[in-house]
Amino acid sequence: MIVADFSIVPMGSGTSASKYVRAVHQVLADAGVTFVPGPMSTALQAESLEALFKTVEAADQRLEQMGVQRMIINIRIDHRRDKEISIDSKLGSIRI
Amino acid sequence: MIVADFSIVPMGSGTSASKYVRAVHQVLADAGVTFVPGPMSTALQAESLEALFKTVEAADQRLEQMGVQRMIINIRIDHRRDKEISIDSKLGSIRI
Amino acid sequence: MIVADFSIVPMGSGTSASKYVRAVHQVLADAGVTFVPGPMSTALQAESLEALFKTVEAADQRLEQMGVQRMIINIRIDHRRDKEISIDSKLGSIRI
Amino acid sequence: MIVADFSIVPMGSGTSASKYVRAVHQVLADAGVTFVPGPMSTALQAESLEALFKTVEAADQRLEQMGVQRMIINIRIDHRRDKEISIDSKLGSIRI
Repeated sequence: MIVADFSIVPMGSGTSASKYVRAVHQVLADAGVTFVPGPMSTALQAESLEALFKTVEAADQRLEQMGVQRMIINIRIDHRRDKEISIDSKLGSIRI
Repeated sequence: MIVADFSIVPMGSGTSASKYVRAVHQVLADAGVTFVPGPMSTALQAESLEALFKTVEAADQRLEQMGVQRMIINIRIDHRRDKEISIDSKLGSIRI
Repeated sequence: MIVADFSIVPMGSGTSASKYVRAVHQVLADAGVTFVPGPMSTALQAESLEALFKTVEAADQRLEQMGVQRMIINIRIDHRRDKEISIDSKLGSIRI
Repeated sequence: MIVADFSIVPMGSGTSASKYVRAVHQVLADAGVTFVPGPMSTALQAESLEALFKTVEAADQRLEQMGVQRMIINIRIDHRRDKEISIDSKLGSIRI
């Protein structure tokens, strides 16, 4: 399993981005992706890099349909092969 | 108010980072910083860029004390002047 | 055209990463990708998000073959639909 | 020495950002900072985290003066204590 977080910053669409974030979350929910919204980015888990990237492509296309002309997409991926990881296992291991 | 998220990836300290993440969260808690742990990064809010950066410096110093020889620090900041923001207001605005 | 930059931080493989960076650049060169090495990340251009992600997957697989057990992959993408962009056009527009 | 790269994405200021990037580079040049412009971000070196953050604050203030109402600032820092690093040493070590 791969855990990642990503954000999409629309440019040229005003200072508010919340409707775009909600639209992206709807794309994730419709696709059955496990995700956790955060104040700066959205964390998600995927079976593979390929599955993760398909999800990002779907989010990008949704924003294009909404008229966004330019976006800066930021993705950070934790790809670990020595151990199974998930959003839950990662959150559990850092509890203080 | 500024909302940001950040992560510190230790290099040369094995594949596990959870003890370092917990130590950083302890630094934040001791300093009275409002923060939200996430699976890939830690979100926090600060009164100013200067206050945010002081917090990151304290986290960096804590990891140095723990013996980390090299770290990659990633910070993403939302600096908004047209509207008051906080972790709560940002999470509230994206609820679906 | 899409312009992006990315970096891969290996964990659990010592403090030096240069041999991994060189290996990734070799993957890019062999695949005919246009890229510019930087001190913190590698910039590249691609015809589409799909092509970009294929390249990142190839880099990830190369590092796995080299024995890296865990890596943090960071990707930032400029996806612009109102104008053709390239590494050259972007560098040209910011010249002072 | 610390090596970092950073970018500032203005929101609500149209789809073009090049004039803002040029203004930030002017701030860096005026302050005597060693930097390398890239297609996606600007790499720079600094004596300390504190010096690096002062530079980012100056860039942020310059964009505020230019009327940017909201910006997403992205900073990635390589903080290494086992070895002296600079932009030149990092670029040199990855040459293929």
